[in-house]
Amino acid sequence: MAARGKSTTKATTSPAASSAPVDHDTTIPRLGAGAFDNPLGYCRFMDDAARVRIELTDEEVSGLSGNEDLALSFELAGPRAKVFFNPKKTKCAIVTCGGLCPGINDVIRAIVMEAYHAYDVAACFGIRFGLQGFIPRYHHDIMELTPDSVTDIHEFGGTLLGSSRGPQPPEEIVDALERMNIGILFVIGGDGSMKAAAAIQAEVARRGLLVSVVGVPKTIDNDVNFITRSFGFDTAVEQATRAIRSAHTEALGALNGIGMVKLMGRHSGFIAAQSVLALKEVNFVLIPEYPFELHGEKGLLSALTQRLTSRHHAVIVVAEGAGQHLVRASGERDASGNLRLPDICGLLRSAIDEHLNTANVPYTLKFIDPSYIIRSVPANANDRVYCGFLGQNAVHAGMAGKTGMVVARVQDRYVHLPFHLVTSAQKRLNIRSDYWRAVLESTGQQHLGPDLSECPLPGEA
Amino acid sequence: MAARGKSTTKATTSPAASSAPVDHDTTIPRLGAGAFDNPLGYCRFMDDAARVRIELTDEEVSGLSGNEDLALSFELAGPRAKVFFNPKKTKCAIVTCGGLCPGINDVIRAIVMEAYHAYDVAACFGIRFGLQGFIPRYHHDIMELTPDSVTDIHEFGGTLLGSSRGPQPPEEIVDALERMNIGILFVIGGDGSMKAAAAIQAEVARRGLLVSVVGVPKTIDNDVNFITRSFGFDTAVEQATRAIRSAHTEALGALNGIGMVKLMGRHSGFIAAQSVLALKEVNFVLIPEYPFELHGEKGLLSALTQRLTSRHHAVIVVAEGAGQHLVRASGERDASGNLRLPDICGLLRSAIDEHLNTANVPYTLKFIDPSYIIRSVPANANDRVYCGFLGQNAVHAGMAGKTGMVVARVQDRYVHLPFHLVTSAQKRLNIRSDYWRAVLESTGQQHLGPDLSECPLPGEA
Amino acid sequence: MAARGKSTTKATTSPAASSAPVDHDTTIPRLGAGAFDNPLGYCRFMDDAARVRIELTDEEVSGLSGNEDLALSFELAGPRAKVFFNPKKTKCAIVTCGGLCPGINDVIRAIVMEAYHAYDVAACFGIRFGLQGFIPRYHHDIMELTPDSVTDIHEFGGTLLGSSRGPQPPEEIVDALERMNIGILFVIGGDGSMKAAAAIQAEVARRGLLVSVVGVPKTIDNDVNFITRSFGFDTAVEQATRAIRSAHTEALGALNGIGMVKLMGRHSGFIAAQSVLALKEVNFVLIPEYPFELHGEKGLLSALTQRLTSRHHAVIVVAEGAGQHLVRASGERDASGNLRLPDICGLLRSAIDEHLNTANVPYTLKFIDPSYIIRSVPANANDRVYCGFLGQNAVHAGMAGKTGMVVARVQDRYVHLPFHLVTSAQKRLNIRSDYWRAVLESTGQQHLGPDLSECPLPGEA
Amino acid sequence: MAARGKSTTKATTSPAASSAPVDHDTTIPRLGAGAFDNPLGYCRFMDDAARVRIELTDEEVSGLSGNEDLALSFELAGPRAKVFFNPKKTKCAIVTCGGLCPGINDVIRAIVMEAYHAYDVAACFGIRFGLQGFIPRYHHDIMELTPDSVTDIHEFGGTLLGSSRGPQPPEEIVDALERMNIGILFVIGGDGSMKAAAAIQAEVARRGLLVSVVGVPKTIDNDVNFITRSFGFDTAVEQATRAIRSAHTEALGALNGIGMVKLMGRHSGFIAAQSVLALKEVNFVLIPEYPFELHGEKGLLSALTQRLTSRHHAVIVVAEGAGQHLVRASGERDASGNLRLPDICGLLRSAIDEHLNTANVPYTLKFIDPSYIIRSVPANANDRVYCGFLGQNAVHAGMAGKTGMVVARVQDRYVHLPFHLVTSAQKRLNIRSDYWRAVLESTGQQHLGPDLSECPLPGEA
Repeated sequence: MAARGKSTTKATTSPAASSAPVDHDTTIPRLGAGAFDNPLGYCRFMDDAARVRIELTDEEVSGLSGNEDLALSFELAGPRAKVFFNPKKTKCAIVTCGGLCPGINDVIRAIVMEAYHAYDVAACFGIRFGLQGFIPRYHHDIMELTPDSVTDIHEFGGTLLGSSRGPQPPEEIVDALERMNIGILFVIGGDGSMKAAAAIQAEVARRGLLVSVVGVPKTIDNDVNFITRSFGFDTAVEQATRAIRSAHTEALGALNGIGMVKLMGRHSGFIAAQSVLALKEVNFVLIPEYPFELHGEKGLLSALTQRLTSRHHAVIVVAEGAGQHLVRASGERDASGNLRLPDICGLLRSAIDEHLNTANVPYTLKFIDPSYIIRSVPANANDRVYCGFLGQNAVHAGMAGKTGMVVARVQDRYVHLPFHLVTSAQKRLNIRSDYWRAVLESTGQQHLGPDLSECPLPGEA
Repeated sequence: MAARGKSTTKATTSPAASSAPVDHDTTIPRLGAGAFDNPLGYCRFMDDAARVRIELTDEEVSGLSGNEDLALSFELAGPRAKVFFNPKKTKCAIVTCGGLCPGINDVIRAIVMEAYHAYDVAACFGIRFGLQGFIPRYHHDIMELTPDSVTDIHEFGGTLLGSSRGPQPPEEIVDALERMNIGILFVIGGDGSMKAAAAIQAEVARRGLLVSVVGVPKTIDNDVNFITRSFGFDTAVEQATRAIRSAHTEALGALNGIGMVKLMGRHSGFIAAQSVLALKEVNFVLIPEYPFELHGEKGLLSALTQRLTSRHHAVIVVAEGAGQHLVRASGERDASGNLRLPDICGLLRSAIDEHLNTANVPYTLKFIDPSYIIRSVPANANDRVYCGFLGQNAVHAGMAGKTGMVVARVQDRYVHLPFHLVTSAQKRLNIRSDYWRAVLESTGQQHLGPDLSECPLPGEA
Repeated sequence: MAARGKSTTKATTSPAASSAPVDHDTTIPRLGAGAFDNPLGYCRFMDDAARVRIELTDEEVSGLSGNEDLALSFELAGPRAKVFFNPKKTKCAIVTCGGLCPGINDVIRAIVMEAYHAYDVAACFGIRFGLQGFIPRYHHDIMELTPDSVTDIHEFGGTLLGSSRGPQPPEEIVDALERMNIGILFVIGGDGSMKAAAAIQAEVARRGLLVSVVGVPKTIDNDVNFITRSFGFDTAVEQATRAIRSAHTEALGALNGIGMVKLMGRHSGFIAAQSVLALKEVNFVLIPEYPFELHGEKGLLSALTQRLTSRHHAVIVVAEGAGQHLVRASGERDASGNLRLPDICGLLRSAIDEHLNTANVPYTLKFIDPSYIIRSVPANANDRVYCGFLGQNAVHAGMAGKTGMVVARVQDRYVHLPFHLVTSAQKRLNIRSDYWRAVLESTGQQHLGPDLSECPLPGEA
Repeated sequence: MAARGKSTTKATTSPAASSAPVDHDTTIPRLGAGAFDNPLGYCRFMDDAARVRIELTDEEVSGLSGNEDLALSFELAGPRAKVFFNPKKTKCAIVTCGGLCPGINDVIRAIVMEAYHAYDVAACFGIRFGLQGFIPRYHHDIMELTPDSVTDIHEFGGTLLGSSRGPQPPEEIVDALERMNIGILFVIGGDGSMKAAAAIQAEVARRGLLVSVVGVPKTIDNDVNFITRSFGFDTAVEQATRAIRSAHTEALGALNGIGMVKLMGRHSGFIAAQSVLALKEVNFVLIPEYPFELHGEKGLLSALTQRLTSRHHAVIVVAEGAGQHLVRASGERDASGNLRLPDICGLLRSAIDEHLNTANVPYTLKFIDPSYIIRSVPANANDRVYCGFLGQNAVHAGMAGKTGMVVARVQDRYVHLPFHLVTSAQKRLNIRSDYWRAVLESTGQQHLGPDLSECPLPGEA
């Protein structure tokens, strides 16, 4: 990775992947060489060494300035001609961790179907309520998963297995894996869960066990580094547009109507930004990555007043983590250890009220917080296809003895990524990117504060 | 109306409508006899004196105990062979007041289409932003409404005209009607707007003007007396079920998951109750009409704890006006003069948290407030047909010189109701009715407090 | 029922129910008096003799000319204080017959839930694949239905039990009921199935058995006499509007674009008419009840040509049974014994092609046949509530020993109807009604043939 | 591009792009160097020479066997710091050709918004009814497109401009461009339209005019070479899954129920295949690319019979162009010159009927042809974002003086492709690909005929 000076144009013809730092190592660990024939009657298998070179952009990796690019080579996902595990003797376990996201059930279903129909595995177990399900003192039952028991689950949102937040001791988890004689563990979860999966894999390695640990990264916020768009994101955006359409209707329904929509996004504004691109009725979008100003000539309040004066209605979309520079955090944490976010929308509403009252502008504000509605629905067709491939490829990877890795789609290719790539940093929306420019163009919104070139990029100090 | 003793069975064979009090007078005022031939080439017209006798139940009228019935005779809606206004010289005005509701645009469209296509009226004006639009100092423009300008509006939620809350001086409004030479005024609005319409009609009468004032009652809460189900209600319920489904999914997604949904309903629980009947995943439903207990053996907290212990998940639906006996009102009022409701859901969440923590029951609560999402969508097919008939019949009534009345569907018949019937009281859900029993059966919920027979009915002291 | 002369106005104040012919007898048979206390802790029960008087219109009964009305008194549905069957010893069976319809699973679910939760019955059996399921030689298994097994079925369209068409010998069916020791049989099905249910009840009576036979009328076409709108109809219309919207879009997408939509309706045009009222983009609607002309000055081809010349696009909705006077029937019958309908849409397309080519009008016609898409979806919220009440009331009726009857909603009241009322005739759309007039106004379509007053009404020779 | 022997494994590490034949030239013509400053206040512009290297797969290019890859370098889309046209003096024209596709209105809207808001162009014209709109003798009006006139069009399916099929003389079109003083022509259309656009550009070049011709490839079938997924495809698949779900419900609703769904896809099975991946209820999927057998041991009829015998229901998805080896073409052509396809579904139904009757297997077949329903809906959120970027990038390209090219998304990057790349061949589904394997796994379907390795790939003789 090489910066290319301060020019304001972008060139991507000669990415310097060779200078990539060590943590861009894309090598995938494996338990050992394949000893068994893949039972599939494929017309072709994926060469175990097959790789694809992808020129990453700021849609995949935080910290790219736009003047540089990062071309990396990744191991391709897919079935191998030789597999490490003896299919018919292999037992699998699936666990789902963290918050809900559209498509979890599709991933579970795809894993179970592929494990049974393609590899005829000995058993497939569902661990209940996240990592808790491994820990005896919680007394959660194990679910036996079969093609029959999962056949309809994709028609329902959420996770068949239940979930929970927060870590559990890797030692106890590996004890459970040993007790249950699990060969492949599939972990569907977020950033914290992938770190937990890495700890489990480390403990497995310490004990010299032959257990494959395969992750499927899940995040409603689309903030997983190296992954262009995470599964369920598209469905969530589709749902979010409904809330925005309502806000637009409410704004039009009153003189100087303001529709304010709060969307998910603790640290990144991807859902907010993508929803704005999908429904072009938004005038202001506030995301965690841009330190917008409230007061002053360039600030939101002034811009909003101008908008109302000229058009008499406005729609504002706010990512829940936006404007943290304006509020004081309480320091409280939730069950996952995440800091509780102060209520930016409350602050905005008060500030708007005071400003417009002072300016003697009558107005009506309608606040909409769709919250869980956008994440607990079943996946749409696009995410279903995506989740199906993730599940199938997770099984192929696990059977091949790959471990310490996740299956992922980078740009449009299904690949294997080592845990450290997706856990080393969370992805942020690059406010100097083409993508954010398109968002601003869609809203007609000006910079509500510092010029973008003055804002530090994620990863920059 | 006659109470029929304290027996616990219901008989409806001999309703004693003759003893109905004076305010059950269903006579419709009219400006005068029809002097013009109806230009429609109908195969049949409605006899101007045609009436229908309907046995009303507690789904239409508050205060019926279930041991009594109320059979009334209503004037049927529909086109008359002779009309009062000279169609080609008549100018109409439409105004929409109060909060949004699915179907307003369908009513506007139907009025405009019927006025032009069936009666070939001289003009149809849209008054902007509610009653404000009549008052010169607000400087709102008048919209000219034509078939072309309204042809697509039913595909959008909200109101094309905009709305506002609160009253305006009837004298100024009638001044405006005179200035604009309006023959028929259509008022689409809620309880307060129908009272305003009645005041306008009184002022019209005082001045001896020949202006017909026709109302179309609108309420998202289904709380208009004498009207079985108000337009938009079905659509709102359809939307509310989405939120409940999300809450159910979230509840299943965690150990002892609780999904709590807040729905509209300041004084009545119809949306909450109907949504519960439509999506059978709700365990507790709290409405304004039933003074549920929080603490104690029969109280919500105890019942919820039992539910979690046995089934490990629960869904609670709360009408926004429920539990007002448990919270202290602030006394503040909004722009329409409605009292601001204290936050029952906040109180419930605190009480649940304290109770379950004390009981050492780990839990996860997800709170969903779909708010305006359920009211700002376009109408569904059912409501579209309904709104179409309301709009058409409003025009027929207005052209026939009917005034001081609303068009409405009572049970399944389109009729005319005098203003006083729909404004004299707001409808409440009868908690001793078959309907509420069906809701309780659907939830499996016990009485969370006093026996129903001990609760005063609406209208009872 | 009394005709009121040839006047063109309608009066409904003095219906002459006393002169109703014998087949308007609304008496409900019952197996015997209630001997057991209803286990429900209701706040009120329905008096067993409670009746409601309803002024029926041509939306409920075919053959009313609009100049007359029919006021009948019906037995109200609901739980009785005393029930005939000993709840804990009673076994129920449910069978679904004929074509699919939205809401069947909701009815099944409601019956099972009410039977178990309210009456704690001994068992509830599902008969598979319609009446075939009773006949041993088909070797269909019986499904045991429990609250757990039906809890999610309302999220899926179709019928959990499967269905089949056509009759089976009543003797063999009653043999099966005896073998299984069934106390209450619930038959969910159409016109033919209600006739079959009547035959079963007759055989039960002949043998002197104490078996209650309760029907729930099902028809996607809304053609059941005495029932204002059958369950699933609203959902089907909602789906049909999607097809019409597509046709409208296609029509606009080409010069002189014609969108033609074929909808269900073998003998009645209710789905077509209601869909047209719900989506106001249709210019011509053809239904079985009106013998439209194709050629000639008033005919469809001439009107279509004028429409294309002036507006350059047109949408035509065709009920599958329309225009049978224009085509020659093959005489073939399907499995239910229904005559196969000739293809009216094929004929229309040929005629349009020839006519427009001759007239030298270039055009593009897009034909859409949504067919089963509109009937195999899950019920919408409105139908779900409806189906819930039908199922609950069916159980109340059966437990009370009512037999030979169906539960139904007439206008807005849940009542019991004897089998003969709903099987004596099929409902047809009255083309002289306000309803059809509203349809014609919505389309702007003129009579495409004889004046309505010249058309015989259903029931007239 | 180099074949890599007959090994059954796939390696992609060293694609030999240097051996690519001439027609893989990705150079984009331009009218001249940029002379004007881009008026946008961008934080960064795209370097005019910026390119991205993409390893193409059989999802982008037909004829890749899976044993080889094709890595090409493409010009990146985006705004340039210097533009060729003087923004304020430039007039644009937009034309939409061929069949409807979800998202056309979004592309139109994005072009108009970007042209006005970002570049402040002099005018933007809409050409009506396809290329006909340029030809005087058709007398179509020109539409003036402004931000106000297009603000809501994305809420409607179809094309605001109307469309038509078939070519028009390039000379007359360029005459019209000269008359209207058009600087940039945007052509939204399919394969034939891109060829027409190329002819227009050639005529422009012949006359030495400075007109930029920019295409946006449109195809509901996803069969444009080099484009991973065309706009609208995702929405169409979403709609297609509704039809499949209905077919599944119908199949379950009867003993040995067969649901057959016909989907678009004259020459390629992408919609069918993707829909099958999205809704996992399909047992057989027939596409044009695979010459399935009907009869014989491996044939469809035998496999279907086995499926019915074991599971008693089956869902079959048929692309309209499947099985052309089994039917005899009529030789007729439609207005675009496309051969009319014989009715494969009719043939299948007859063959199934005969086979199952002979085998004495009673069955019920429900046939669903959603046809235009899947293409005339508004775009979903995903396609809306996609179409927004296509429209914006089309304007950037045109303003920069690029011509003879289309904007496209290849894998996940927005790039410029010269006309010849997308018109030289149509994309076909590679039946030896991972993608088709996933489809087969999803259905559980065996090869219904020759082994895949025996089938010629598209492009192979």
